[in-house]
Amino acid sequence: MSKILKGIGASDGIAISKAYSLVEPDLNFTKTSIDGSASADEVQKFKNSLHETKVEVTKIRNYAEETVGPEHAAIFEAHLMVLDDPEFVGPIEEKITGGHSAPQALVEVRDQYLKTFEEMDNEYMRERAADIKDVSKRLLAHLLGRTLPDPASIDEEVIIVADDLTPSDTAQLDKRFVKGFVTNAGGRTSHSAIMARSLEIPAVVGTKEVTSAVNDGDIVIVDGTAGDVIAGADEKEIKAYELKTNELKRERETLLELKDDETETQDGITVELGANIGTPDDVEGVLANGAEGIGLFRTEFLYMGRDKLPTEDEQYEAYKTVLEKMDDKPVVVRTIDIGGDKEVPALDMPKELNPFLGYRAIRMALGNKELFRTQLRALLRASVHGNLKIMFPMIATIQEFEEAKALLIECRDELKADKVDVKDDIETGIMVEIPSAAILADEFAKVVDFFSIGTNDLIQYTFAADRMNENVSYLYQPYHPALLRLIDNVVKAAHREDKWVGMCGEMAGDSTAMPLLIGLGLDELSMSAGSVLKARSQIKNLKKTDMEHLVEAALRSPDSDTVTALVKEYTERL
Amino acid sequence: MSKILKGIGASDGIAISKAYSLVEPDLNFTKTSIDGSASADEVQKFKNSLHETKVEVTKIRNYAEETVGPEHAAIFEAHLMVLDDPEFVGPIEEKITGGHSAPQALVEVRDQYLKTFEEMDNEYMRERAADIKDVSKRLLAHLLGRTLPDPASIDEEVIIVADDLTPSDTAQLDKRFVKGFVTNAGGRTSHSAIMARSLEIPAVVGTKEVTSAVNDGDIVIVDGTAGDVIAGADEKEIKAYELKTNELKRERETLLELKDDETETQDGITVELGANIGTPDDVEGVLANGAEGIGLFRTEFLYMGRDKLPTEDEQYEAYKTVLEKMDDKPVVVRTIDIGGDKEVPALDMPKELNPFLGYRAIRMALGNKELFRTQLRALLRASVHGNLKIMFPMIATIQEFEEAKALLIECRDELKADKVDVKDDIETGIMVEIPSAAILADEFAKVVDFFSIGTNDLIQYTFAADRMNENVSYLYQPYHPALLRLIDNVVKAAHREDKWVGMCGEMAGDSTAMPLLIGLGLDELSMSAGSVLKARSQIKNLKKTDMEHLVEAALRSPDSDTVTALVKEYTERL
Repeated sequence: MSKILKGIGASDGIAISKAYSLVEPDLNFTKTSIDGSASADEVQKFKNSLHETKVEVTKIRNYAEETVGPEHAAIFEAHLMVLDDPEFVGPIEEKITGGHSAPQALVEVRDQYLKTFEEMDNEYMRERAADIKDVSKRLLAHLLGRTLPDPASIDEEVIIVADDLTPSDTAQLDKRFVKGFVTNAGGRTSHSAIMARSLEIPAVVGTKEVTSAVNDGDIVIVDGTAGDVIAGADEKEIKAYELKTNELKRERETLLELKDDETETQDGITVELGANIGTPDDVEGVLANGAEGIGLFRTEFLYMGRDKLPTEDEQYEAYKTVLEKMDDKPVVVRTIDIGGDKEVPALDMPKELNPFLGYRAIRMALGNKELFRTQLRALLRASVHGNLKIMFPMIATIQEFEEAKALLIECRDELKADKVDVKDDIETGIMVEIPSAAILADEFAKVVDFFSIGTNDLIQYTFAADRMNENVSYLYQPYHPALLRLIDNVVKAAHREDKWVGMCGEMAGDSTAMPLLIGLGLDELSMSAGSVLKARSQIKNLKKTDMEHLVEAALRSPDSDTVTALVKEYTERL
Repeated sequence: MSKILKGIGASDGIAISKAYSLVEPDLNFTKTSIDGSASADEVQKFKNSLHETKVEVTKIRNYAEETVGPEHAAIFEAHLMVLDDPEFVGPIEEKITGGHSAPQALVEVRDQYLKTFEEMDNEYMRERAADIKDVSKRLLAHLLGRTLPDPASIDEEVIIVADDLTPSDTAQLDKRFVKGFVTNAGGRTSHSAIMARSLEIPAVVGTKEVTSAVNDGDIVIVDGTAGDVIAGADEKEIKAYELKTNELKRERETLLELKDDETETQDGITVELGANIGTPDDVEGVLANGAEGIGLFRTEFLYMGRDKLPTEDEQYEAYKTVLEKMDDKPVVVRTIDIGGDKEVPALDMPKELNPFLGYRAIRMALGNKELFRTQLRALLRASVHGNLKIMFPMIATIQEFEEAKALLIECRDELKADKVDVKDDIETGIMVEIPSAAILADEFAKVVDFFSIGTNDLIQYTFAADRMNENVSYLYQPYHPALLRLIDNVVKAAHREDKWVGMCGEMAGDSTAMPLLIGLGLDELSMSAGSVLKARSQIKNLKKTDMEHLVEAALRSPDSDTVTALVKEYTERL
C-alpha cells in the first residue's frame, strides 16, 4: 500500500522512479587486536583499501569536474592529497604493525588529527578536519567491506532519498539519472532546495520521515509543485501521475515556444527577465530558458572553498567567459559578497556575534581595498567583451556607494594609463537589501545608474528576523505591506530619476508575488533560470493597469494575509 | 608632567581625584610539593585563607545588597556557597594531604571543575564556572598573601582606573567614594559606560592606555563630557578644572531649579520627559531629577542572573513598589525582553547564529505563554497602585500585537472572575524598534494606544549593523535621514489617530538629536534620569516651529553629516 508524505515543495515538477537511499551504513566494528604474525596481512589489507579508496575518489573527482565544474571538484582533490600523505598513512601502518586491527588503527589516527585540528580552531582547520573525516569514512567502509552510498555511481534513473544533502553530495548528482529527491530536513531556502531549483530537478524537502517510510528500490512519486511524496506507489497512482507528467511536459513545451519572445503585459508594458547565476557554467541554463540577461552574477564562487585568493587574471577569465557567452545581453555582476555566513578560508575573517549584521559584502570590501581593487580591475578589463553592469552589495549609505565608485574610477584610470582597453559607460548600481537604502532611494537615485532589490536580505532586516532561524522564520513575509511599501518607494524614486530598477531575490521568481511586482512597476526581474519561461507566460496574461489597482489596495493592507487574499481576488478575475 | 589621554566621554561631568588601579596582581606561583610532615600546617594555612575569603565575600555581599540591591548581591551568595561546598573544599584538602602545596591543590581542583563545566556547555554551567573562577582567584590571593583590588573596600575618594569593568566590579562601586572612572576598553554603549551614566559618575572609556599611563595614587582629572583624561595633573591643571567643576556645579544648581517645571518649548508646546529604569531602586534617581514619569521600565532584572523564574507575587511586588513610589505619574512597563544577547539561565534558550535577528522579546513571550501570562497577571494586579501602561517589545507585525493584547485581556478577565481588582483602562502600546512597524505605523496606530520608539534597535536594523560590532559601528547613525524619515512616519501616523508617541532609546537623551526630536513632534522622551534636567533646559530654549523647518531640511538630506551641520546651523541662530 502506498503512503503519502507531505513536505515542502522545493523545486517544481513531477518525478516517478525507484528510490535510492543515500543513508549511511553502520560503520561500527568490534575493537580487536591482532597478533604479530598477522600484522603483515593486516597492513596489506589496509593498503588494498587505500588503493580502492583512491580509485573511488579519483572517479568522483573526474566526474564532478565534468558535470559541475572544477571549482566543485576541488574538494576531492584535497581528499586525494590526504590519501597520499605519509603523515596520515604512515602512523596508521605503524599502529597496525604494533598490534592494532586496521580499522582500529585508522580510527585512532583519525581522532588524533581531529583533536589537533579542533584545538587550532579556525575555518581552514575545520575544512581540513572535514577532509580527514570524509576520507576516513570511505577508507573504513572499504576495510569493513561495507558500501557507502555514492551518488556519482548511480547509473540508472532514481529518486534520491536522504536525511539531508550536503554540498558534497549534490556536487555528485547526475541529472541524467537523478530524477528527483526527497529529504527529511530542510526548508524552501535550504541548500538542497536551492540546488534542486538550480538543477531543475523536482524535489520535496522537510518531509521529516521519508528515510524511514521508503525502502531502497520502492517506487516513489515526487510532486515538487504540490510538496507531495507517494512512497510505494501502486499502478493506479503511477498512471495518474504519468498523465499529470505528460500534461506538465506539454506545458513545458508550450512554455518553450515563448523562449525567444519579449516579456510583455497585456497592455504592452515590457519587463526584462534575467536569471541569477553562481558560476560561468550556469550560463547554458540561462540561454536554454530564454532569459534576456543575467540579473545577478554572484562572484563568491571565486573565493570560497579555496586557500588562496583568486588572481586578477583568473577573475578576468571568468567574467569574460560569461560576458562572451551572453553576447550583448546585459550581465549584472555583483562584487564580492562574503562575510556573514559565507566564510573564506583565505581571509582571516573575524568571528561575529551577529554575522548577518556584521562585517560583510561592501563593508568588508571597502576595508580590504587591495582585494576589492583586484576584482574591480578584472571586471573593468572584462568589460570590453560584453554588456557588463557592476553592482555593489549591502549598501547602507551614500558614502559607501561613493567610496566604491571612486575606487572603480581610480582602477579604470590606472588601466587606461597602462593602455588597457576598458569600456567607458559601464552602469554602476547597488543592491537594495538594507532598509536605509530603500527608505532613502530618492537620494540614491541621483547617484546610481540602477537598483536591484535583494529581497532575501531586505525582508530579513525589515522584520529583524533571520530566515534561517526556524523559530522566527514566520516573519519572513514577502507579501507584507511594509515590504511592498519599501519596494514601491524604490521603484518610484528610480523612475523619477529615469533609472531602472530590478529585483534579484527569491521573490522575483515567485508566482504569487508576480502580479504585485508588475503592478509596482519593476523594470527587470532576475530569478532561477528554470523559472523564467513560467514567469514570462504569467506576465503575458497580466494587465499592468489592473495590477496597479491591486498594488494600491495591497499597500493599504494591514498584513500579509490580506495581501495574498487580494492577489487571489485580482488574478481570479482574469 | 601631566599626560592627556583622549577617550570616549561615556558619562558627563568632571572628577579630580587619586587614581585607584583596579588591575589584578600577579597570581603566579612556583609549583612545589611539600613533605608529609608539613601537610597538616599547609591544610591549616588553606583553612585560614578559606575563612578570610568567606569574611571578605560576606562583606562584599552585604555591601552590594545595601548599595545596589539584592538582585546584584545574588552573585556573591553563589560565591559563598562554593566556599562552603564540601565537594569543592574536600578534594583540595585531600590533595594537600597527598603532598601538594595549597595553591597547587586549589588550582588543580579548580581546573578539574572548569573542565567538567566546559564540557556541559550551557549558560547555567558557564555561570557556575565563572563563580568557581572568581572564588578561586580570591582564595589564591589570600594563600599567596597578595591583595586583590577590591572596589567595595574603597573608603576614600578615588578615580577607578581599569582595563574594563565587569558587572561584578560595578556592583561594588560606592558613589560616595568613586568619583569617576577611566577604562582602556569600551565604547559609549558598553556595559561600563551605561553603568556610569546610571550612577551619574563622570567616566571616559576606550582610552586604550590608561592602565599603563597612570600609577596608583596619581592625581587624575576625568572630563566625561569632553572625553579627556589628564594623568598626573599639575597644580595649574587642577585649578583650571576646579573652576570648571564649580561652573558645572552652578549649572547643575541652576538645572535643579527646573526640577518641578513643566517641559515647554518657547512657543508653548509641552513635551513629557520620562526616565528609563532597570530596577525598582532606580525610582529615587527618577524623582530626584524631576522626571515626569517612567518612559521605560525594563523588567529583565526579574529574570536574569538567577536559576528560577520569578513568581507572579514577586513580580507584583516589584511593579507595585514602582507604581506607588511614582504616585500617579505614568509608568510604562516593557514586558519581558530577553533572548538575543540577554540570556536567562532558568530558560533553555536556543543558541542562535544571529541572536539580534532571533527568538527574543515578544517572539519568545508568545512562544512561552505561561511565562508571559505570569508577567501579565502580575502587571494587571499591580495596575491599581498607580498609572500603569503596558508596552510590548520587538513587535514586527500587527498579528503579534493582537496576540499579546488578547492574552492580556484573557488574563484580565480571569482575574476579574476571581474578584481581583484590576484597572480597566490600562493603555497598551508597542516599542517601535523594527523597521516593519515604523513603516506600517499608520495601520498600527489604529490598534495601539501609544508608540515608544526604541532607537537602539531601530538603528541597528535599519542599517543592518550590530552596534556592538566595532567593524560596523560606523553605521550606527542616529542623525541619518533614513532613520529620521522612519521617526517622522511614526509620529505623523500616531497623531493622525490621536495617539501619543515617545522615544526611549539612547537618542532620546542626546542633545544633538534634541532639536530634531522636538521638530519631529515627539510627545514624550525617556532617558537616563541624569539627563532629564539638561534636556528640559535645552527644550525650554527651542522653538518648535523653527525646529520643524530644521526637520524639513534634514529629511531631504543625503547623509548624517549634512544633518548634523543643519542642526548646528539652526541651533546657533538661537
